[in-house]
Amino acid sequence: MPPTITANKSHDFKAHYDLAHMQDGETDDAYVQRITRYSDGTVKLRNSNIELMDQDILYHLALGSESHDLQEMFGDVKFVCMGGTPKRMENFAHFIMDEIGYKLPAGTQLQDISAYSYRYSMYKVGPVLCVSHGMGTPSVSILMHEMIKLMYHAKCIDPIFIRIGTCGGIGVEGGTVIITEDALDGQLRNSHEFTILGETVHRPAKLDKKLARDLKSLHSADDPYDTIIGKTQCTNDFYEGQGRLDGAFCEFSENDKMAYLEKLRDHGVVNIEMESTIFAALTHHAGIKAAVVCVAILNRLNGDQVNAPKEVLHEWQQRPQILVARYIRKVLTRDGQLKNLFGHQGSIKSPRRFKLVQQESQAHE
Amino acid sequence: MPPTITANKSHDFKAHYDLAHMQDGETDDAYVQRITRYSDGTVKLRNSNIELMDQDILYHLALGSESHDLQEMFGDVKFVCMGGTPKRMENFAHFIMDEIGYKLPAGTQLQDISAYSYRYSMYKVGPVLCVSHGMGTPSVSILMHEMIKLMYHAKCIDPIFIRIGTCGGIGVEGGTVIITEDALDGQLRNSHEFTILGETVHRPAKLDKKLARDLKSLHSADDPYDTIIGKTQCTNDFYEGQGRLDGAFCEFSENDKMAYLEKLRDHGVVNIEMESTIFAALTHHAGIKAAVVCVAILNRLNGDQVNAPKEVLHEWQQRPQILVARYIRKVLTRDGQLKNLFGHQGSIKSPRRFKLVQQESQAHE
Repeated sequence: MPPTITANKSHDFKAHYDLAHMQDGETDDAYVQRITRYSDGTVKLRNSNIELMDQDILYHLALGSESHDLQEMFGDVKFVCMGGTPKRMENFAHFIMDEIGYKLPAGTQLQDISAYSYRYSMYKVGPVLCVSHGMGTPSVSILMHEMIKLMYHAKCIDPIFIRIGTCGGIGVEGGTVIITEDALDGQLRNSHEFTILGETVHRPAKLDKKLARDLKSLHSADDPYDTIIGKTQCTNDFYEGQGRLDGAFCEFSENDKMAYLEKLRDHGVVNIEMESTIFAALTHHAGIKAAVVCVAILNRLNGDQVNAPKEVLHEWQQRPQILVARYIRKVLTRDGQLKNLFGHQGSIKSPRRFKLVQQESQAHE
Repeated sequence: MPPTITANKSHDFKAHYDLAHMQDGETDDAYVQRITRYSDGTVKLRNSNIELMDQDILYHLALGSESHDLQEMFGDVKFVCMGGTPKRMENFAHFIMDEIGYKLPAGTQLQDISAYSYRYSMYKVGPVLCVSHGMGTPSVSILMHEMIKLMYHAKCIDPIFIRIGTCGGIGVEGGTVIITEDALDGQLRNSHEFTILGETVHRPAKLDKKLARDLKSLHSADDPYDTIIGKTQCTNDFYEGQGRLDGAFCEFSENDKMAYLEKLRDHGVVNIEMESTIFAALTHHAGIKAAVVCVAILNRLNGDQVNAPKEVLHEWQQRPQILVARYIRKVLTRDGQLKNLFGHQGSIKSPRRFKLVQQESQAHE
């Protein structure tokens, strides 16, 4: 029997610094909207300490509120896309640049904005920020605090956060794209457990249902794979924590493991990964619409080791990116922000002639 | 009141795969030695599944037991040094290379062995492996499982694991070097909490006391900073989880925070970081001697933000590296493995002439 989940235990800490309490007759959504947004839709923080500080150093992003003009740099951000490795997010940055026809000034290239933190990588492609979050909930937690503060300093309007990841499928084949409906922890609770000043606090790990449906609706009948919505379990380990038999330790039998995975499946869990509860809990607490889109890299009911060839894994990892790119294009088109969607070539007028010039040039080195 | 800590709950899982149970009259240490070492001192796994597998892919290290000759590559490893960022561990690899006088073959340079994983970085300098572990316990957990399996596949003899990190000090000044005596979790329990097949399991977060004392003894009276031994708290977050007022959320007052930090101090906690409990729990479970050596980058009793200039932080981060290098040199000298410690220049006979040749060469480009 899981312990009772308390949506907001801030009152236990006397909430000196929370912005306001819920008013009589106010709905949950209206309350969150009021305390997390200014009237112009820009992000308001649930921490009044920040505006009283001389400067706010976003230590793990290598950015600061006084060293950088964060509004100038990031004020136009509409989408924050996150994923595990720097490499995947760099690839996604180049992919989304093509997909939305975003044009860099001649003679420039993307730069890792957070390179000097040596922790996360961040690329900006117009309204899309592409950030790596590392592995596991603590790494995501640090990033989320600083990204939410960045949205505040930059006065971003209603940003949407999307995590693009990989996962183990439960009863779904490798290559399936899975949109998270609810994020569950190791004990199947729909919340993330925090320890704050030594006390245990649970916050609901809720994602935006409409965003999930919108993403699902962009699956194409031509896609040679399934795109499904289901429950996602988030664990703190890849081996014992996900019932694998092939870690450095294993103190359960294959039967124990299978019984557990089948229990997960019967509970509606379709995939396991390591970041969704914190991502959902912190975005929800900040009133930010968020989604988690992962590709299954194996079906855990068939085994533990990831055996698909590198090229296959690479193609699979593009699938969540393709879905998210469709969504971003749709929103930008709806908002009239996508001027040059079709046939945009950046500074290249003729790809054929471009290639010839490159070859010519190389021959003369 | 923390729940009772069970050292080994493997019996709850019927322990089909654990290698043996404790025998009558056997001490804890003798039991762990017997189930974690072969008679020649090489690492034995507490998971008999691994030897039955056709191949074992160390997915997050970009290595495999059949694709690579792991014994040939890693059989001579004596020390596994880990730290958060790839950059720090690359720096440490170059530093330790100088310190132990390790000579690369002419025309070669260090290569990131795990580059193709895009997750961790790994550099090998003779008997020293330098690996980045990312931030937070789940990221360390994945790495530890694969590093312990690597030690097994490579038939390493009695390897020693040392984490080199940064931390927040409690009542100690920035720049102080702290060797962890005991690793405590967010509730001040000297254990790490795992969720395995949905059940909560605690494993003791024990580090090697003698190794800690040996490290401490290598502090030099000439070092312009203190080196101390004390308790370390490991948290799952950098902001709320460490009682900071400057995260995206803050639902406690400055008084609440200070009361909490003072409670930690009164409990003997001298620093807070985010990796020590899992590092201690998994090395202890594997019978591997381990230590955690961190430098405090601020005194949390004075504030939350990390304000020290980059150059100062850089110098501070070298301090744990210097201590660990002294230890490695001492062990290698004792074992007769350090042939050329003093005045070793690699392939450079005269640094002065080497510089002149470089300058000459650059002038002719």
